[in-house]
Amino acid sequence: MNPAFLSELRRALPASALLVEAEALHPYECDGLSAYRQVPLAVCLPDTLEQARAVLAACRTHQVPVVARGAGTGLSGGALPLADGVVLSLARFNRILAIDAENRLARVQPGVRNLAISEAAAPFGLYYAPDPSSQIACSIGGNVAENSGGVHCLKYGLTVHNLLALKVLTLDGELLEIGLEAPDSPGYDLLALMTGSEGLLGLVVEVTVKLLVKPERAQVVLAAFASVEAAGAAVADIIGAGILPAGLEMMDNLSIRAAEDFVHAGYPVDAAAILLCELDGANAEVSEQIMAVRDVLLKSGATEVRTAQDEAQRLKFWAGRKGAFPAVGRISPDYYCMDGTIPRRHLAGVLGRIAELSSQYGLRVANVFHAGDGNLHPLILFDANLPGEMDRAEALGADILRLCVEVGGTVTGEHGIGVEKLDASCSQFTPEELAQFHAVKAAFDPDGLLNPGKAVPTLHRCAELGRMHVRGGQLPFPELPRF
Amino acid sequence: MNPAFLSELRRALPASALLVEAEALHPYECDGLSAYRQVPLAVCLPDTLEQARAVLAACRTHQVPVVARGAGTGLSGGALPLADGVVLSLARFNRILAIDAENRLARVQPGVRNLAISEAAAPFGLYYAPDPSSQIACSIGGNVAENSGGVHCLKYGLTVHNLLALKVLTLDGELLEIGLEAPDSPGYDLLALMTGSEGLLGLVVEVTVKLLVKPERAQVVLAAFASVEAAGAAVADIIGAGILPAGLEMMDNLSIRAAEDFVHAGYPVDAAAILLCELDGANAEVSEQIMAVRDVLLKSGATEVRTAQDEAQRLKFWAGRKGAFPAVGRISPDYYCMDGTIPRRHLAGVLGRIAELSSQYGLRVANVFHAGDGNLHPLILFDANLPGEMDRAEALGADILRLCVEVGGTVTGEHGIGVEKLDASCSQFTPEELAQFHAVKAAFDPDGLLNPGKAVPTLHRCAELGRMHVRGGQLPFPELPRF
Repeated sequence: MNPAFLSELRRALPASALLVEAEALHPYECDGLSAYRQVPLAVCLPDTLEQARAVLAACRTHQVPVVARGAGTGLSGGALPLADGVVLSLARFNRILAIDAENRLARVQPGVRNLAISEAAAPFGLYYAPDPSSQIACSIGGNVAENSGGVHCLKYGLTVHNLLALKVLTLDGELLEIGLEAPDSPGYDLLALMTGSEGLLGLVVEVTVKLLVKPERAQVVLAAFASVEAAGAAVADIIGAGILPAGLEMMDNLSIRAAEDFVHAGYPVDAAAILLCELDGANAEVSEQIMAVRDVLLKSGATEVRTAQDEAQRLKFWAGRKGAFPAVGRISPDYYCMDGTIPRRHLAGVLGRIAELSSQYGLRVANVFHAGDGNLHPLILFDANLPGEMDRAEALGADILRLCVEVGGTVTGEHGIGVEKLDASCSQFTPEELAQFHAVKAAFDPDGLLNPGKAVPTLHRCAELGRMHVRGGQLPFPELPRF
Repeated sequence: MNPAFLSELRRALPASALLVEAEALHPYECDGLSAYRQVPLAVCLPDTLEQARAVLAACRTHQVPVVARGAGTGLSGGALPLADGVVLSLARFNRILAIDAENRLARVQPGVRNLAISEAAAPFGLYYAPDPSSQIACSIGGNVAENSGGVHCLKYGLTVHNLLALKVLTLDGELLEIGLEAPDSPGYDLLALMTGSEGLLGLVVEVTVKLLVKPERAQVVLAAFASVEAAGAAVADIIGAGILPAGLEMMDNLSIRAAEDFVHAGYPVDAAAILLCELDGANAEVSEQIMAVRDVLLKSGATEVRTAQDEAQRLKFWAGRKGAFPAVGRISPDYYCMDGTIPRRHLAGVLGRIAELSSQYGLRVANVFHAGDGNLHPLILFDANLPGEMDRAEALGADILRLCVEVGGTVTGEHGIGVEKLDASCSQFTPEELAQFHAVKAAFDPDGLLNPGKAVPTLHRCAELGRMHVRGGQLPFPELPRF
């Protein structure tokens, strides 16, 4: 590494905050997407704003790319290092700065774990709503970078809907205060722009989140169906009936069996699919909603509808869902977890099409996902030791993502684009839209040093791939043709 | 006007869609902020995307600024014309393209009136939530430009929280599709960036909004207080108790008396302040909430708490609130409507301070506002015919806005910055934040032809004014000092 750069880092950081030895760098070679690995030039672990600013200054002076990293649980490779780049870990920005019960907000540093916020708010009867499955480990800064969701985002929204303010360090060391406690804020809304930007626009150094009052009661209803399509249709029926569940999850037979063998949740193993519908709120409200949901489910052709008898059973029902990924891991040497989103009305059709693709490719696909907001998580089962299977799995995955875009959905739901979805996202945008994205990026990071090669594909790359831009769902109308 | 430019406009538009004669231009000289007036060079009324694109092309070729205009009801002068510029009216983009009940969304052109969306959705039991007082007249495109709120945005959010997608024409004629029906969308989130950008980034040509299911029941509770501070504290108590009213409005004695004389709403005219608290939702839920709210109000020192006996009385209670502005107009030759937002916890203190300022300046101030989300609308009463009074009113207004910023709030709530708040907003941002805003603007409109001189002040202007940047509310903590 450039000695001048190294000595500048040494001046910027205490010895304990700078890693350059191979064995020390090793743990940072990948995030949750372990199929991609790269050892970085160095890892910096600042624990003050001044140190972070100094690291950015050094990178700017020497034109060295910077990859910010939270807990490293991301599933799209957003924190994958660059061989000639620095990893800036925010692990030591781990303080909860304020729990303001009166105004229902928490001010925390980006390295604070998602669940730690709710734990700190619990004594006040409050909690932070977004709950990615990794919430025990993932950091709020990472949640902001990927705009993470979770089982409850159907009712409570994604990360962006639960943020009040951010403090962001730009590459040239300016501290931007974005958003306010007040509802609207003047100037351009950079809060949502920054959220989900995967570390390409700035370094988040402080996060102010909304806290919600813990619902008086939560109850879950389990419904079994004779076909995946029927379950998909039932999802639309529930939402159509004006019911907004806290969570609405679907599992197909393959996932049901795998989960049942693994955690014995008491699932109906012969069902083609089950829905888990959680309702929360005031006691009376929840009771009313349970009646309404049971009603809709039976009308929609559910073969069986069960309401959890007690809290123990409610948790058992959820344990099966939450254990579904590892459970599938037990029945296949490898699996590839996809993440795409489609408009709800297309659920039944898309699930049918995935089944066709599955037999076409000769690979099993387990479906376990956030049905309520159309966020699919098809798990493609394969054996990396069988020649060609991994490639077939990736090809099948790409087809599924194209399918999502064709019906008006997106190639990502809550895992981000990172490196994994760069190519897939070519089919998401027109060249004009990509050009606009790159112009926005340049407005924050003209040198392109912040997490380069992630999140937004270059026009060149998409052109090379010859990926056609397809967008279904909305048919353009005469007055507004697309060009 | 440059003849080449004029003839290009003539080629672009049918004669009926191009206004250049003085008397035809006159109606466009101002929007809802009639204190500022300017006749434009020309007014264009395209009714197809092609015509709109051609107008933008002509303006780009000849470097003529463009001010987009919806219904012209804006209160901060966002649609104020420029002497050397074109007004691009979207009045003829007035079609409702789709009401999709299954997916609870409406796809409309920007010239459609806010209320017309709810009217078209009513047969499906759905409605569009944001309800600015001008909703009979204001257009959805204007709502997007200003990120409008309304009485119900406490529970249902501002315009930005009720949008799914936008189609935007850039100055160079590219059509951007921003956002999707699916919950999260990859790429940078330009939807919120575009919302509230007051026509500085692009021309909105299509809007897709969320539709909500009409609540089963709505009920309003009226509470009287012996002091404005007590009413302000009660607001915090209601929210603190975990109740989320559909609307939570406050009126002080001056507004109560004015409204009562005007619409005979049955208000307690001796109260120092009243709160109107609307609760909506399922029947049982509303009944529960009314009990809870009455309870909190009495504990918070309400001298009287009334629940509307029937729908007629509920509407009467609201008629008083909705008629408050014209009512104040009856008791003063002129008034200046302010719009600022503060964190709720500062309500009592700020209202007290406004009272002091009022006597200091010797001008009456009537307070009638969205207390629930801290959005103040102080009405400064004055007589423009008395020498110096208008200046005093403006100075008082500026002091009130600075007060909002000092406690961690903003100089605008739901009316935008426009031309009115340009100077005031200098105290809102650091030079670094302003520079970042201008960089974002340049990423969309490098020539600065879209609505120049609005929404975001130049660094130069703020420096000239010598306005110090003040930001209270959040005390910086040691590790993250502000520079």
